[in-house]
Amino acid sequence: MRATTIHAPFDMRVEDVPDPVIQEPTDVVLRVLRACICGSDLWAYRGESARQPGQRIGHEFLGIVEAAGSEVTGFVPGDLVVAPFVWSDGTCEYCAEGLQTSCPRGGFWGSGGSDGGQGEAVRVPVADGTLVKLPAEAASDDRLLTALLALSDVMGTGHHAALGAGVRPGSTVAVVGDGAVGLCGVLAAKRLGAERIIALGRHTARTDIARLFGATDVVAERGEAAEAAVRELTRGQGAHGVIEAVGTEQSMRTAVAITRDGGSIGYVGVPHGSGTGLDLDVMFDRNIALRGGVAPVRAYIPELLPDILDGTIDPSPVFDLTVALDGVPTGYKAMDHRTALKVLIKP
Amino acid sequence: MRATTIHAPFDMRVEDVPDPVIQEPTDVVLRVLRACICGSDLWAYRGESARQPGQRIGHEFLGIVEAAGSEVTGFVPGDLVVAPFVWSDGTCEYCAEGLQTSCPRGGFWGSGGSDGGQGEAVRVPVADGTLVKLPAEAASDDRLLTALLALSDVMGTGHHAALGAGVRPGSTVAVVGDGAVGLCGVLAAKRLGAERIIALGRHTARTDIARLFGATDVVAERGEAAEAAVRELTRGQGAHGVIEAVGTEQSMRTAVAITRDGGSIGYVGVPHGSGTGLDLDVMFDRNIALRGGVAPVRAYIPELLPDILDGTIDPSPVFDLTVALDGVPTGYKAMDHRTALKVLIKP
Repeated sequence: MRATTIHAPFDMRVEDVPDPVIQEPTDVVLRVLRACICGSDLWAYRGESARQPGQRIGHEFLGIVEAAGSEVTGFVPGDLVVAPFVWSDGTCEYCAEGLQTSCPRGGFWGSGGSDGGQGEAVRVPVADGTLVKLPAEAASDDRLLTALLALSDVMGTGHHAALGAGVRPGSTVAVVGDGAVGLCGVLAAKRLGAERIIALGRHTARTDIARLFGATDVVAERGEAAEAAVRELTRGQGAHGVIEAVGTEQSMRTAVAITRDGGSIGYVGVPHGSGTGLDLDVMFDRNIALRGGVAPVRAYIPELLPDILDGTIDPSPVFDLTVALDGVPTGYKAMDHRTALKVLIKP
Repeated sequence: MRATTIHAPFDMRVEDVPDPVIQEPTDVVLRVLRACICGSDLWAYRGESARQPGQRIGHEFLGIVEAAGSEVTGFVPGDLVVAPFVWSDGTCEYCAEGLQTSCPRGGFWGSGGSDGGQGEAVRVPVADGTLVKLPAEAASDDRLLTALLALSDVMGTGHHAALGAGVRPGSTVAVVGDGAVGLCGVLAAKRLGAERIIALGRHTARTDIARLFGATDVVAERGEAAEAAVRELTRGQGAHGVIEAVGTEQSMRTAVAITRDGGSIGYVGVPHGSGTGLDLDVMFDRNIALRGGVAPVRAYIPELLPDILDGTIDPSPVFDLTVALDGVPTGYKAMDHRTALKVLIKP
């Protein structure tokens, strides 16, 4: 079969790899119907996180079960399923608590020796704990299938950020980051009842989606001007909750500055850079909390799925470029140059 | 009257100062019955936080109302009252939410131009919002009066830390810091139903109080050895909640290391030092939250007071040295040399 591999920074290839087979009785082999490129994949693409030459990549996908190991009880060939961005056994203490990202048997797609999602098929370990079944009829609804793909990462990550930011009915929420996760954070905050949602962003193509998702205000300024703008919109106080969906020192600094005293930052941007951007003196004096991290999206799929199925939320607009598998390298380039927000892959 | 003043690092004096008088109709003048020295006062004492020569000091006190301004409705002369370590108007948005430390009309005792608690009397601004009445009979109960004094700071701060650490019935909690706040954190965690409380500390005089307050385990090791010891006590996982009651880079580093995935650090140690001690990559991967800051103890007094009155909790053992007002300089020295845990002042 064919799959995406990374050989060096900016050197993405789509090449022949061995077909996945059942290796453990708890495995499933899944034929990929939809996959996509994540903002965090760009760290590997740009060489900011190291990869072995030839390593597989992609951690967001859904598809059809092609084969199931002898101990798999939840899935049979033909099932339509979505995979969260880490696999997890579903039976350990952490999985039981909804923190599947800390499962000792868990792992990240594309990490050494495992399959990545940006290919024709994937071997899924501990499939019963990992996969979630989708209604079969969704397979024939192109828009819905794309929306459901967001459950594998960005929608659940946006939800995790909104929970970390403590969004409640009536909250004022600010969102730092206009990527797909930030936009899904807007959607999640709206879903949780936020009354006012301030999206920080300068690209109208993106802020238009933010408005579509429920943003009531857009702040196009950057740095201190952005902080002042948010303060002006919030009677000088800042937002009850701030979603930090970038992961840089500067974005965290902005998040701290625009959080209201007693409020929370829900951070889901993968941290990179040498400093944290956290001014602990300020956070201490103002009782600002920091919550978040790598999102246990597996825990959120059962809650978010019905809302996508019935149209309450529709994250599909975050996908603004579609490629076939051979177009994946072009997709990376487009996201790296910010000409695409998020690239959908139809293998 | 006489009050404590700070003139330079290590130069504490007890000297004559003007008697406080009602300046605003919302003021109360309070005769101090009990005051004490806080670990955070030592930062001024050691010159690590700047003070003007002659500045007043002390932010923990209780006493008898001596005079009340014309607009004070809640108190009359003769009332026994306790003051939290900041004053606050009780009417603003933040006060209504229980975040009195962010009250725009609030302030910290001993800050420029205000009275400090380590003296014979104090002018209390916005008294209706600030003070809390205590039962008159407590004035004749020496042990109880001492316990009630802890409501002005350490007991409420320990409670804030326990809330920040997310302590729930059945939780495992670790406490970094064996000062009065850390010990009150143990007491607060016990009160909130923690099943296992691991106190980190090497001084048996202090860890004995920790055990009295509810610590089930004591870890005397430091640094990495302490981290290993906590992990061993928690099946390798760490504690659900960690109370950080020191405020140094090293103590925060320890707190992060011993928090279980998905857990929280409740931090109340005033941050000092150049770095935060926060490894954001680790916190991100393990979904560790950071909550806390300067404790709005005014919000907690109504909740904690009945439990002190009925003996459910008794923080009085944290006071292990008593001095008269003239003995305050000696008290600072004792706390600085760690020969005293917390010094009680009977003016």
